[in-house]
Amino acid sequence: MSGSTFGTLFRVTNFGESHGPAIGCVIDGCPPGMALSEADIQPDLDRRRPGTSRHVTQRNEPDAVEVLSGVYEGKTTGTPICLLIRNTDQRSKDYGNIAQTFRPGHADYTYWHKYGIRDPRGGGRSSARLTAPMVGAGAIAKKWLKQQYGTTFRGGMTQLGDIEIPFESWEHVPNNPFFAPNASVITRLEDYMDALRKAGDSVGARIRVEATGVPVGLGEPLFDKLDADIAYAMMGINAVKGVEIGAGFACVAQKGTEHGDELTPQGFRGNNAGGVLGGISTGQDIAVSIAIKPTSSIRSPRASIDLAGHPATVETFGRHDPCVGIRATPIAEAMLALVLMDHALRHRAQCGDVHVDTPRIPGHLPR
Amino acid sequence: MSGSTFGTLFRVTNFGESHGPAIGCVIDGCPPGMALSEADIQPDLDRRRPGTSRHVTQRNEPDAVEVLSGVYEGKTTGTPICLLIRNTDQRSKDYGNIAQTFRPGHADYTYWHKYGIRDPRGGGRSSARLTAPMVGAGAIAKKWLKQQYGTTFRGGMTQLGDIEIPFESWEHVPNNPFFAPNASVITRLEDYMDALRKAGDSVGARIRVEATGVPVGLGEPLFDKLDADIAYAMMGINAVKGVEIGAGFACVAQKGTEHGDELTPQGFRGNNAGGVLGGISTGQDIAVSIAIKPTSSIRSPRASIDLAGHPATVETFGRHDPCVGIRATPIAEAMLALVLMDHALRHRAQCGDVHVDTPRIPGHLPR
Amino acid sequence: MSGSTFGTLFRVTNFGESHGPAIGCVIDGCPPGMALSEADIQPDLDRRRPGTSRHVTQRNEPDAVEVLSGVYEGKTTGTPICLLIRNTDQRSKDYGNIAQTFRPGHADYTYWHKYGIRDPRGGGRSSARLTAPMVGAGAIAKKWLKQQYGTTFRGGMTQLGDIEIPFESWEHVPNNPFFAPNASVITRLEDYMDALRKAGDSVGARIRVEATGVPVGLGEPLFDKLDADIAYAMMGINAVKGVEIGAGFACVAQKGTEHGDELTPQGFRGNNAGGVLGGISTGQDIAVSIAIKPTSSIRSPRASIDLAGHPATVETFGRHDPCVGIRATPIAEAMLALVLMDHALRHRAQCGDVHVDTPRIPGHLPR
Amino acid sequence: MSGSTFGTLFRVTNFGESHGPAIGCVIDGCPPGMALSEADIQPDLDRRRPGTSRHVTQRNEPDAVEVLSGVYEGKTTGTPICLLIRNTDQRSKDYGNIAQTFRPGHADYTYWHKYGIRDPRGGGRSSARLTAPMVGAGAIAKKWLKQQYGTTFRGGMTQLGDIEIPFESWEHVPNNPFFAPNASVITRLEDYMDALRKAGDSVGARIRVEATGVPVGLGEPLFDKLDADIAYAMMGINAVKGVEIGAGFACVAQKGTEHGDELTPQGFRGNNAGGVLGGISTGQDIAVSIAIKPTSSIRSPRASIDLAGHPATVETFGRHDPCVGIRATPIAEAMLALVLMDHALRHRAQCGDVHVDTPRIPGHLPR
Repeated sequence: MSGSTFGTLFRVTNFGESHGPAIGCVIDGCPPGMALSEADIQPDLDRRRPGTSRHVTQRNEPDAVEVLSGVYEGKTTGTPICLLIRNTDQRSKDYGNIAQTFRPGHADYTYWHKYGIRDPRGGGRSSARLTAPMVGAGAIAKKWLKQQYGTTFRGGMTQLGDIEIPFESWEHVPNNPFFAPNASVITRLEDYMDALRKAGDSVGARIRVEATGVPVGLGEPLFDKLDADIAYAMMGINAVKGVEIGAGFACVAQKGTEHGDELTPQGFRGNNAGGVLGGISTGQDIAVSIAIKPTSSIRSPRASIDLAGHPATVETFGRHDPCVGIRATPIAEAMLALVLMDHALRHRAQCGDVHVDTPRIPGHLPR
Repeated sequence: MSGSTFGTLFRVTNFGESHGPAIGCVIDGCPPGMALSEADIQPDLDRRRPGTSRHVTQRNEPDAVEVLSGVYEGKTTGTPICLLIRNTDQRSKDYGNIAQTFRPGHADYTYWHKYGIRDPRGGGRSSARLTAPMVGAGAIAKKWLKQQYGTTFRGGMTQLGDIEIPFESWEHVPNNPFFAPNASVITRLEDYMDALRKAGDSVGARIRVEATGVPVGLGEPLFDKLDADIAYAMMGINAVKGVEIGAGFACVAQKGTEHGDELTPQGFRGNNAGGVLGGISTGQDIAVSIAIKPTSSIRSPRASIDLAGHPATVETFGRHDPCVGIRATPIAEAMLALVLMDHALRHRAQCGDVHVDTPRIPGHLPR
Repeated sequence: MSGSTFGTLFRVTNFGESHGPAIGCVIDGCPPGMALSEADIQPDLDRRRPGTSRHVTQRNEPDAVEVLSGVYEGKTTGTPICLLIRNTDQRSKDYGNIAQTFRPGHADYTYWHKYGIRDPRGGGRSSARLTAPMVGAGAIAKKWLKQQYGTTFRGGMTQLGDIEIPFESWEHVPNNPFFAPNASVITRLEDYMDALRKAGDSVGARIRVEATGVPVGLGEPLFDKLDADIAYAMMGINAVKGVEIGAGFACVAQKGTEHGDELTPQGFRGNNAGGVLGGISTGQDIAVSIAIKPTSSIRSPRASIDLAGHPATVETFGRHDPCVGIRATPIAEAMLALVLMDHALRHRAQCGDVHVDTPRIPGHLPR
Repeated sequence: MSGSTFGTLFRVTNFGESHGPAIGCVIDGCPPGMALSEADIQPDLDRRRPGTSRHVTQRNEPDAVEVLSGVYEGKTTGTPICLLIRNTDQRSKDYGNIAQTFRPGHADYTYWHKYGIRDPRGGGRSSARLTAPMVGAGAIAKKWLKQQYGTTFRGGMTQLGDIEIPFESWEHVPNNPFFAPNASVITRLEDYMDALRKAGDSVGARIRVEATGVPVGLGEPLFDKLDADIAYAMMGINAVKGVEIGAGFACVAQKGTEHGDELTPQGFRGNNAGGVLGGISTGQDIAVSIAIKPTSSIRSPRASIDLAGHPATVETFGRHDPCVGIRATPIAEAMLALVLMDHALRHRAQCGDVHVDTPRIPGHLPR
């Protein structure tokens, strides 16, 4: 009950610290009989891993995943799947000086007060590195959902600092280091990041992820609403400070005649709902936006206090992402997949298998 | 596992439908020995109940709460507390015609596809009426948190449609039907609502809630982060489409030098964090904003389909709030209280009692 | 997390005290679309209710159940079902004198030390009366399991004090007040009980319950084994001190060549397994025996202490079952049904629907 | 929800297969600040490990435990502790021939029908080898309970086949390969086992475990009773078919005047309760007995069927314990410790810290 397990029926228990010997997770509840190997998991880990461009941390981790259990002769057996990722490039010395102070914007202060002890090596448990096992687990969920229902996931950056990134096409996303669904803005983003890095500062970002081909009927009516679980999953990603479903905060200024998506025999006329009504999926695309705060680890000196409560100045050296949002897209996709996977199993429990041949009303997604 | 239980250690199990004989909840895990009677619970229910102004639904429900168990000679015994609220003003006939169509923006379509059956009387289980038992449970959580740690809750409307409501003082909130922390804007809000009602339309709203006097150390590091659980709780309230903690979406355009709240021996220099760092409370105010979509039940005719998939036109008569956001403040406060209560007990389990005498750094909250 | 919820996917949350205004439960996770009314539930409650013979407590409770939610037009909707049973024959005065002492064998001492407060009226929360809502919930589980898989439940008393009750036929069970599967022993049991009542003493009993027509494959491999969950369910019934599956304690003296049930194309050659291997159902009958201790509330004076720790003598008047085992059969059946129901839904979640047409090997049950 | 996690607040998630690369567990919820290293855990693993006498399996596994996370500079940090045990002596070839048949008494048949796939190497997930990580987790629970409350654990064999082992002293337990609390019976046990091994047969056993120095007040009133959770934990150990608390099945023939333990200012006059009343600990010793069935893997040929349902004969070669009960004592101790640990944290959550200075009535334990 200390918050290291995600999900109810497709349960992922995460362990490890950024600079300990290893990180990983145990996935319990995976349906049996699905073909699975490291090759299904590694590509998403590669999308998330550090050191792939000059705009992210230069920590050089291969993040090679090892499947320790739950698979026999290339198929899942229904027993827990343990994914292990050895830490290979930890440099604890880079972090030695921060053990005596609290870095602004970091979990140092809260861990210290909660536990009376903290592992300062690379942020210990509070490091975004702990999202890697979730990306691995998410890859398994994605594979199952695609096989079972044809569900697919995609996402990208829609804003970097004050630069809005107009949506052009999801096809651009893999072709630039920012996961931007736009080709023309890349040079501007690169210049912006280069300047930021020189200034020793960091910046926030907005990410959008979607699921397409979602069965109708996933989610629960009251709590564990599909959108509530998505909000929980997204707000649980390091540095996230805001979550929107569908129209999100724009709905505040909408009228009822504008917001409520009308239905026609051909489908919904819009997707202000973001694919969820009453906590349950409509079959439209699930559309989620998140706000990611600027990286707290920056070179610029900042005011703080030490363990004794005396004033101190903190400068963070070491290797950090100047915008943690850049690598957030595969993480958010994975978390969305884990939520849908969990609800797919929950739906089967109470209501039996989803009828994918149900005459489903397609959703029209405005962007 | 069908999503009718909220919380892990302070567990609230909700039951009932809007137009069934009764609604209520069972609260399991309440610490023993706390003085408790209906008089502690009814005031918050009265803040939420319908029929209190012309701007909300005219359904006339006293929402009188009955404590069926868990209290002996005026004190909690540690056993489950059942709160029962009888429905007294249901008028099922008002809803008869909607059983054959799917109202846009409503849960009709998703319930039908999930369960193959739905209770159309007043929205059945998807009615916002089911928040009443949560407000009751929240009142118990509030009382315990105040006694134990001095924690208090407050909130109000910060935007109605496109009218922003500048913060003046929390003292204004009880003095107007909108829970607006501002006295001068009330006339404008009333005119706006009157016009809306005439037009048979509805509108969205933005609500802000806060907890003050929160102990340091509540929350978990990875999942079940305090802010993740808050996002889950808020997105689970009917009609909510967005959640922000602290700076929220504004953090996207912030620099690291601006966002990360510096620490001084006298306290934090800001509260962009919204009182949570690394998923754990800092002792600053917990600050949350939510976006509430316009009511889906409106008189204006809307395109839809019937159960057979044929085109249909839906007009919703009956008694509805033209802005569900108006009554949302006490609900959001209650959900925030339930999250903090749960984490207070979780903290005791793993780390022992919170040390309220810990030299705590006060938080300065910018608004 | 205070132990008032039973089950994981078919969750029953129990509330109330023996002499409070009402007892009941909320059942969350029931599959939708099943015909359900009070008439499906009341018969099992009637089998359990007090006052039906001179050998059980003379408390006269009709235990009439009211369905408050979760059913619409005679069918379950998939939303929580609240069962309410009003207490009508509470006589708190009978219990007034026990508030200052701890009755031997009772929960008085432990409640007092755990909570610092206890509701002494009729045992409060520790009363066996709280099994009534479970019998109600079990009736719903039984109905679903029978419709879905043809599973049925039965049980009876196999020993009363030192009188062993040889199995003759399940058909005898409803025809005597002891639930004895034997017609010839009834007079002896009645005389035994009459003498016991005169002596102001009480006695233990052994109960056996079975499920027949169980699908193969229910249960989990490691924890939440089907037999582990059964043991948990049975040991949770008031006064139970021992649980056996299949051969039970007799297996200690068995050889491997004797115990392991051989398989043939026609079925298993025995049922030492009690219908469970490796935590998962085999399709044989699930066979469970439980030991029930003698009622602790007896007229004979007993040594104890008072709240101050001083010696005291306790005599319990009021209306009590001289053998709580007599009414235990329907309770044990209900708990077994609840365990199977939960695992049926869990199986659907991970592995899809049970294939009842799977070539299943019938089980031969030795008695 | 596939049953690989044990506990609610002190949660142990188990993974691995007998002949896969590794087995292990993740422990979430351990209180922070406790000194911990492999040296605290290895001794209990050594007590359980195979190959230590001729009476147990000759598989030679060092079962060396590695702590992968959750400990920093020799202290627990409050974050999840991953224990990893590499499998080093797996010989899959020994098991090749059993993949096509179902061994009587084994989980082969049920796994096959549940999952449609099974890992036959050494029993895969159903192997008793998976208890090793639980023994590791139990060692951590034992250490914390001892430091916090002075609670200690002990146990031993009380019957092997039809040989009853009269209790003499716990001091004998570590001095013989049977964990027998008796010195004089050892030769007889050895001769018995030697003959059994020659005959290619196996036998059952009865084990008793106890906890001493247990705080008053652990457990919950209705479900999650302390004894219910113990029954669940014990019945979940491989091969267990029966569980008793205190007087156990002997209570069936007891009178109320005999069973209910009287209280005096000096303590309870007996311990028929086994340390639990109303589901909550009394402060007396917790006393538990379990029945362990004979090993199913025996050399003697047995009738069975193959995957196609045709008759087959199964002889199990390879290395097996002729009495799995022999190594069960440290496992049962560990499971008992895990249950108490979980309830200790649950008690803190709802009721605050246990008051170990409460005037506690000592329990007198009859054997």
